[in-house]
Amino acid sequence: MSVKDLNEVKKEKVAAGKNTFFQVLIGADEGPNFAMRRFIIEPGGSMPRHTNLVEHEQFVLRGKAKVGIGDQVYEMSANKVVYIPAGIPHWYETKGDEPFEFLCIIPNKPDKIEIMDS
Amino acid sequence: MSVKDLNEVKKEKVAAGKNTFFQVLIGADEGPNFAMRRFIIEPGGSMPRHTNLVEHEQFVLRGKAKVGIGDQVYEMSANKVVYIPAGIPHWYETKGDEPFEFLCIIPNKPDKIEIMDS
Repeated sequence: MSVKDLNEVKKEKVAAGKNTFFQVLIGADEGPNFAMRRFIIEPGGSMPRHTNLVEHEQFVLRGKAKVGIGDQVYEMSANKVVYIPAGIPHWYETKGDEPFEFLCIIPNKPDKIEIMDS
Repeated sequence: MSVKDLNEVKKEKVAAGKNTFFQVLIGADEGPNFAMRRFIIEPGGSMPRHTNLVEHEQFVLRGKAKVGIGDQVYEMSANKVVYIPAGIPHWYETKGDEPFEFLCIIPNKPDKIEIMDS
């Protein structure tokens, strides 16, 4: 059992992203089946087009971004709920001068990120 | 793949709760491993002390509540991250005049709610 404040959890840089950080809010060491993370893409930041071996269930907390999923591009903002199946290419580009923040939940299964753009 | 707005998703009453509603944001029909739901406990609302067969990973979106987990009572507010293991008794009581809203993610496994208070 645990109760944490979002702002007390360690923030790390996402190697594949530009101005992108993440926090493991509930990790595989704690939750037996899935992990809850928060991603923060600072203004001007982005994540390149990539695939993962695991699905993503995401919830947008704040900010705005253009998000590509498969062949579609979406204008994302707070309160959007996003399901990205395993293996589907996706990318992120912030809009405006606010960080784009979202929760991203993944199963506790082997994952591998594959970058599709150079 | 799907993108939804939180406010477009059907809201249903939680039978065991008082003034409590929920939405299935990403259900077992869509996500293969876990389901994302939002709970809304309106002012004056509550959920009685109960157990589930599955763990909960929760994220508080807005509002305030007293939340009991095991033998502890917590003052909850936005940005709190909560992990409740399977089988641990928990309950909710809103505080103030704002709805208490949180995401609650559970694995796609058989669940059963058992109410502990009359």
